[in-house]
Amino acid sequence: MGLEIMLEELKEAYGTEWTTTLINIMSNEQKKDWFLRLDPNGRIPVIIDNTQDPPFPVMETSAEMLYLLKAYDKEDKFGFKDELERNQCLQWTFFWHGSGAPYQGQVNHFSRAAPEKIPYAINRFKNETLRVFGVLEIQLSGKYSDGPREFLAGKGKGKYSVADMKTWPWVKGWERTGFSKEEMDAFPNVLKWIDRIAGREAVKRGIGEAYNQS
Amino acid sequence: MGLEIMLEELKEAYGTEWTTTLINIMSNEQKKDWFLRLDPNGRIPVIIDNTQDPPFPVMETSAEMLYLLKAYDKEDKFGFKDELERNQCLQWTFFWHGSGAPYQGQVNHFSRAAPEKIPYAINRFKNETLRVFGVLEIQLSGKYSDGPREFLAGKGKGKYSVADMKTWPWVKGWERTGFSKEEMDAFPNVLKWIDRIAGREAVKRGIGEAYNQS
Repeated sequence: MGLEIMLEELKEAYGTEWTTTLINIMSNEQKKDWFLRLDPNGRIPVIIDNTQDPPFPVMETSAEMLYLLKAYDKEDKFGFKDELERNQCLQWTFFWHGSGAPYQGQVNHFSRAAPEKIPYAINRFKNETLRVFGVLEIQLSGKYSDGPREFLAGKGKGKYSVADMKTWPWVKGWERTGFSKEEMDAFPNVLKWIDRIAGREAVKRGIGEAYNQS
Repeated sequence: MGLEIMLEELKEAYGTEWTTTLINIMSNEQKKDWFLRLDPNGRIPVIIDNTQDPPFPVMETSAEMLYLLKAYDKEDKFGFKDELERNQCLQWTFFWHGSGAPYQGQVNHFSRAAPEKIPYAINRFKNETLRVFGVLEIQLSGKYSDGPREFLAGKGKGKYSVADMKTWPWVKGWERTGFSKEEMDAFPNVLKWIDRIAGREAVKRGIGEAYNQS
C-alpha cells in the first residue's frame, strides 16, 4: 500500500499519471510466466516504467518507491538531497522492510491463516513486532537525539519521506494484527505519527477503501 | 557478514581502512544506551563514519553497504553508474533483505534455537526459503532474459555488486540451514554463483574463520 501512497503523493505534487492492471491472485496470475518476467518473485505490486526503452520493471515495494523517487520526484519532496539524510531514509526503509514487515506479516499468518494455532509462534512474532514498534518509538520520541520527531528520517524533527510511506501502512494496522490499545499505549509517539500521516490527502486516496488492509 | 566482505573489497580496491570494536552480545551490550544511540534496533553490526562531523552511525547491513558504496566506492566498482542498473541492484538487495534473510533466519531459529520442535513452522520457513532460492535460480539462469548470468544485478551477465554481497553469505550457508545436496541440485546456477563468489580473495578474508556462519 506504500506504493499507492507514493503514487498519489507524486500525482498531487507533480501531476504524475499512471495506469493500473489488476492481478487476480486467487488464480495465481502472479505466478505465470508473463508476470515472472517482470518480477521473478511473483509478488504484487510491480511497477513498469513505459517511458524507458525497453519498458523497465521494478519489483519489491521499497525499490519501487525509491525508483519513483529518483525518476519522478525531481525536487526530492519525499526524499532528501543531503547524502546523510538520504542514507538515514534508506536505513529506516530497510529497517521496516527487513525487521518490521516480515515479522508483523508472520503474526498475521500464525494468528489467522495458519491451519493450527501455535502459541509459541504467535507469541514469538507478536513480541518481535512489539519490539520493532518500540524501535520506532525510540526514534520518534527523540530519546537519543534532540526531542520528539515528526517523521522517521531527516534532520531536526524529520521530514515525511519514503521511509514513513513504507512503514506506516503496516503499523497503522496494529489493531487488525491483534494488538490491544493497552499494548499500543507504550508507543505514544508512534500513535501520534500514525495520526499525522493518516491526515494527508494523498494517503487517504492511496489507501482507498482498504484502510484496514496491509 | 556481507558488511565485512564489502569492507574487504573496498580495502583491496582502494586501500580503505577501518577499525573494529567487538560487542559482547552474550551480555546484551548491544541493548545498552550507548549502543542504542548508534542503532535503536540494538543489532550488530553498525558502522560509524568518523570522517563526518558529528560521526555518522549507520544501521541495517544493506543500508551500511549502500552507505559505503556511495561514500567510499568512488568508481562504483561494486555498484553501478547507470540508474536502471543501480535500481536493479537495489531490487535484489531488498529482495534478499526482506524475502530471503528473514525466512532463512526463521528456519535457523525453528530448527535449532526454539525450545520445542514445531513441524508446521519448520516446514513453512524451509519451503519459503527454497522458494526464494528458486527466485535466485530464475534470475541467475537467465530464464526470462538472455541466458545464464554471473551475478544478480547489471546488464548482460551482470556485475558483482552489493546485491550479491548481501545475498551470498546466507545462501552459501544452505547446509547449515539444513538443506540437502539433493534439494540444492534444483538450483544449479545458484550453486555455481556460490562457488564463483567464494573464490574472491576479499570474500575469503571477509568471512574469515566464520565460513559456516551467517
